[in-house]
Amino acid sequence: MTSRFEQDTAVEQVDEGRYRGEIVEGWSVSPVGSVPNGGYLLAMAARAMREPTPHPDPITITAHYLAPPQPGPIDIDVEVVRSGRRHSTIRGQLHQGGKPMVTLLGAFGDLSTAQGPTRQDREALELPPLEECDAWTDEAQRRAEAAGESPPSFALRFDRRTPPGMMGWSQGKPVGRGQMGGWIKWPDGEMDTLGLLAVADAYPPAVFNSGEGELGWVPTLELTVQVRKRPAQGWLASMFTTDSISAGYLEEDGEVWDADGDLVVLSRQLALAARPGR
Amino acid sequence: MTSRFEQDTAVEQVDEGRYRGEIVEGWSVSPVGSVPNGGYLLAMAARAMREPTPHPDPITITAHYLAPPQPGPIDIDVEVVRSGRRHSTIRGQLHQGGKPMVTLLGAFGDLSTAQGPTRQDREALELPPLEECDAWTDEAQRRAEAAGESPPSFALRFDRRTPPGMMGWSQGKPVGRGQMGGWIKWPDGEMDTLGLLAVADAYPPAVFNSGEGELGWVPTLELTVQVRKRPAQGWLASMFTTDSISAGYLEEDGEVWDADGDLVVLSRQLALAARPGR
Repeated sequence: MTSRFEQDTAVEQVDEGRYRGEIVEGWSVSPVGSVPNGGYLLAMAARAMREPTPHPDPITITAHYLAPPQPGPIDIDVEVVRSGRRHSTIRGQLHQGGKPMVTLLGAFGDLSTAQGPTRQDREALELPPLEECDAWTDEAQRRAEAAGESPPSFALRFDRRTPPGMMGWSQGKPVGRGQMGGWIKWPDGEMDTLGLLAVADAYPPAVFNSGEGELGWVPTLELTVQVRKRPAQGWLASMFTTDSISAGYLEEDGEVWDADGDLVVLSRQLALAARPGR
Repeated sequence: MTSRFEQDTAVEQVDEGRYRGEIVEGWSVSPVGSVPNGGYLLAMAARAMREPTPHPDPITITAHYLAPPQPGPIDIDVEVVRSGRRHSTIRGQLHQGGKPMVTLLGAFGDLSTAQGPTRQDREALELPPLEECDAWTDEAQRRAEAAGESPPSFALRFDRRTPPGMMGWSQGKPVGRGQMGGWIKWPDGEMDTLGLLAVADAYPPAVFNSGEGELGWVPTLELTVQVRKRPAQGWLASMFTTDSISAGYLEEDGEVWDADGDLVVLSRQLALAARPGR
């Protein structure tokens, strides 16, 4: 069975070095108008970028967000820069109406055959148990969307559970530190290394919990995701942190761990703090 | 007066969208043969990439290292992907003999006019005082190189001072944690935001201090540098950390702070652990 994520990020080749996808409703976030989520666009682009290679896994991929595309067809240009035994280096570019929307550069490999030392000095991410966390959606909402009784919603694309207090910023009670995250998985289907790219951008901006700046549109300038391992199935533990805001520029560093307790993602984005009135 | 760094990373336009630089001896590191340092190549590329823009500062720049170029002339192709008011997004590619060596994607801006909130939740980097740190070179070495009495050496390109014990790995006494760094500045001339790109790759691999893996060639697959501020002049404090090694893939996260106590760089690279016999 094809998962919703797989369906919604599907691409087909339309020409030499050109693929086409369809940005569907239901992956949009609503800061100003309706903008497709950056992780969704990244995953769709990566699906096209790996096509000409024997390397299915994004090892490190960087996206620069130039302009917000609209729901509908989108073209993805793919250029192989270097094709090696272990890795392929690929450029990608999403464009719509002839205008570049996202430009990308990534190295792809095959994590199922990766060999070398493994060592974890990073403190494992400790989240409160699932049953103590807050669910973002319920089955009634899923049924209503599926039946067309409510509009497609980004909140329904993931199963997410956040530690108590993590969403306090939305009621004027930020945590006081730029942190955001929790348990996450697909509501349906298997999580793979393309899915992890979407997971790396699935939460509201961590800076909202710092109490600094506005609660508005925090545009991502650039997002880089390192994928370390094909994830074990089950809930993933994730945390995203913003520690340094410099004249409006801020990073958001993410880590994602799988159900086997292994680090599967390190991500970092550069974003712009929200501006008053936006 | 032009600094050695400025001279050695100079580029000139040779065609529409094409620049030429000269990789000079003295920026090579010697893991296997003689390979120009990745930060040096990044800085030279960035100098060309900003040329067609009104934006002098690399805000976030990503380099994928494909093959090691040789000292001598190198061509840099530069393509403007998007030219905006605040930022320009630029693709770059270093090639030699028609072969791509480094491919890049970066956003450039003007940090002198950046406006927005500033907040630092990151713990400031605490290094031992300069006088307690180990110098890597002395004036006699500098004079010998300048007089042509000893070959050009990467060690002389920077002034570096490392905390006691930081170089113990080279005598079989690693720190036990993947950390590397110290005080750093140019021996001559002003540090600017292009120089910071070189600073972000100026130390031996942090993984050598973990005691994990071999002391051999640790090839960088990808390096992303976020530059936050034009640095105050004087010694910079830097630290690079490797915490997670996954089947031979490892990150190296860097932070650089200036003499005013401000964060000026966040960097992250993805590298491959050294393999036996290399």
